[in-house]
Amino acid sequence: MFLSSSPPSGFRDFSPSACALREKTARTISRIYRSFGFEPIATPALENLEVLTGKGGGENEKLIFKVLKRGDKLAQALEKSEELADMGLRFDLTLPLARFYAARQHELPKPFKAFHLAPVWRAERAQKGRYREFDQCDLDIIGSESPLCEIEVISAILAVFDQLKIEGVSVHLNDRSLVEAALQKAEVPQDKRTSVCVALDKLDKTSRESVLGELIEIAGRPSAEMIEETLLNADSAPYAATLPELHERLQKIAEGVATLRPGADVKINPSLMRGFDYYTGPVFEFRHPQLAGSLGGGGRYDRLLEKFGVPRVPACGASIGFERLILLLEALKQGTAPPGPRFFVAFFSEELSRKTLELSSKLRAAGFSVDAYPGPAKLKAQFKYADQKRAEYALIIGPDEMAKDLIRVKNLKTGIESLEEFDALLKLAQS
Amino acid sequence: MFLSSSPPSGFRDFSPSACALREKTARTISRIYRSFGFEPIATPALENLEVLTGKGGGENEKLIFKVLKRGDKLAQALEKSEELADMGLRFDLTLPLARFYAARQHELPKPFKAFHLAPVWRAERAQKGRYREFDQCDLDIIGSESPLCEIEVISAILAVFDQLKIEGVSVHLNDRSLVEAALQKAEVPQDKRTSVCVALDKLDKTSRESVLGELIEIAGRPSAEMIEETLLNADSAPYAATLPELHERLQKIAEGVATLRPGADVKINPSLMRGFDYYTGPVFEFRHPQLAGSLGGGGRYDRLLEKFGVPRVPACGASIGFERLILLLEALKQGTAPPGPRFFVAFFSEELSRKTLELSSKLRAAGFSVDAYPGPAKLKAQFKYADQKRAEYALIIGPDEMAKDLIRVKNLKTGIESLEEFDALLKLAQS
Repeated sequence: MFLSSSPPSGFRDFSPSACALREKTARTISRIYRSFGFEPIATPALENLEVLTGKGGGENEKLIFKVLKRGDKLAQALEKSEELADMGLRFDLTLPLARFYAARQHELPKPFKAFHLAPVWRAERAQKGRYREFDQCDLDIIGSESPLCEIEVISAILAVFDQLKIEGVSVHLNDRSLVEAALQKAEVPQDKRTSVCVALDKLDKTSRESVLGELIEIAGRPSAEMIEETLLNADSAPYAATLPELHERLQKIAEGVATLRPGADVKINPSLMRGFDYYTGPVFEFRHPQLAGSLGGGGRYDRLLEKFGVPRVPACGASIGFERLILLLEALKQGTAPPGPRFFVAFFSEELSRKTLELSSKLRAAGFSVDAYPGPAKLKAQFKYADQKRAEYALIIGPDEMAKDLIRVKNLKTGIESLEEFDALLKLAQS
Repeated sequence: MFLSSSPPSGFRDFSPSACALREKTARTISRIYRSFGFEPIATPALENLEVLTGKGGGENEKLIFKVLKRGDKLAQALEKSEELADMGLRFDLTLPLARFYAARQHELPKPFKAFHLAPVWRAERAQKGRYREFDQCDLDIIGSESPLCEIEVISAILAVFDQLKIEGVSVHLNDRSLVEAALQKAEVPQDKRTSVCVALDKLDKTSRESVLGELIEIAGRPSAEMIEETLLNADSAPYAATLPELHERLQKIAEGVATLRPGADVKINPSLMRGFDYYTGPVFEFRHPQLAGSLGGGGRYDRLLEKFGVPRVPACGASIGFERLILLLEALKQGTAPPGPRFFVAFFSEELSRKTLELSSKLRAAGFSVDAYPGPAKLKAQFKYADQKRAEYALIIGPDEMAKDLIRVKNLKTGIESLEEFDALLKLAQS
């Protein structure tokens, strides 16, 4: 029996061209984040299980891939029916950042502006377009409660989209505390507020009527009508009146982003919720007309560090949905194949092998990329290979060329062939 | 009880400066590999357990971090005392590459020149300098049996060391089949050959006498003396005579590398073994005088694809020991902190916040990196922050500067302050 050559269900291999687009995109994100004063950090793929299962991850905690204990500890766990796992694969990058910050807070600049590009893992039910391993690109500011944090974080992400030539992104802004105040005012009891938020969160996927129906069912008609007045109203005045200072703060964030990124489309959206339990203040989301879900988002999470014994620290972070961004770039035809090597050096014969090695060596020393065919094969097969690798020029040294100390050069785009001296070849390639 | 902020035992967090060195080094490796015609691939962190536990990984198979089954499947496995895990974290990049190639062989160029930079995980006993998560940088040529493969692979790795300004690397070359032939000739029985190889492999860590003593113990004096003659002899003639065509092939590899990388230190070392079971021909290793172990190595592994049902395919690959490379770069003082942002923009007051946002925006639009302080703080604290971030210039707009439409500029290296117009500031920064 042979083994299957497929990756595990819900996991992906990436071809050279897919890798090229992903790497290029990651480099752009990294460069822009850096240019805004954010610094990279890295943390392990595995965390101790109690870190992952503590409060904060919400629904995602159910999706942890757990790592089996080993050796005696596993035997003991089985015998005593204890927890069989001691570690798990991280399901987001926020929890590892919080742990990192708690460990190093005294040596880090204050505030700490960090970014983190890395894969995360979730044991989702495998289905089309949903992956169990995917990359996240987080950026966070820890240690400042100023709305300038939201402004910087949102602006940095908009700068990434600009750099990637993605147009039409809108920023939706809201504040969890403001929503909470509106629900308080609408006399929604504490135990029904989560259901109300979940219903409101569906507004971008379903009709206003259907959301309203659900609200009436959950909270009764009088409360639902008050929610309608504040959270489902095109007129923002009633929402603003709920807690004016928080609404002003949101407006300040919107204006700040518009100052940093002139022309940015930023709007306050009272029905925006964002899923995670840990958000405590402003939340935001990036949307694009060609995507059903969001391109990323984030918010303020002032309490996540408490589980590591660090008293309440103001923090604000966001993440770009890397996989969706890649989908969008591919749809926008920006996923073109990267350039191939400048030169392909054909293999003619064992006797001439040393000569072609020298040619490769000299071209590489001159700074060119050179793909040399490793070993004998028909020239036709070698040219097919050169095409697949998207090489620009194919070079051949056969006995005739060798005798004249010349190189046969074929421009693989035009098909034009010529015989060149080495120096002329360098000039040709540099032009 | 608060949670520990340490990563799991044997795992590491990386600070911004550690990340910077690792990323820069990975980019250099990637660029050089590409310039030799190798293309990137990526595979998941998790593989199906049967792929990882099939033949080929040798000792590393014992070190697999296994991932617990989930839901009903876990309940069933517990009930029936079946395997509790269904996946595992990859312990190397060779096995995933073999799977990748088996799945896509018909769409890939022939031969396929691939590289793969990614973390691997091994459940080693945690100890100083040994990590359970570490990066590997593999490059491989699949589909050619020519010694030009070894020449290209070795040369590409030497080019990486050159680019990183690491001097004094030596390349040790050997051939597993040649060792096998020498053991055959020395009449070492099949079941003792692995022990003999393990003993010979210790030559770079212990004395020649001690190795010889061990050989006598394993194989008896007559065999040990014959092994001494071929595998422990400064005179290479007896080894060469064992199987002349294989020895010539090794010499050809050494000469080819010297042609591609003039000045390279390449030598045939009959006692070089390399650990993995899957090597079937030439093996090689990179050594540096400042490192006890190797800086990387590889070899020919023609049978690894068979487990996926692909008939014998010639393949040759190598890996740079990324963690050792980083240690060496740090020892060579190449691990200096990366440059900080060009500008630090101080926060003066809420009233002037819009003005400083505009300043940041204009400088970023001009292509500069700008770290803006997010929110109010004493200027002393802000300057400490700017120093920690290694910013070059600090910019302040207070009420006086605002009134004159000027910017206070402090060169953070020289301490010199001046008042500048925006255009003059741009010129200053561009010079």
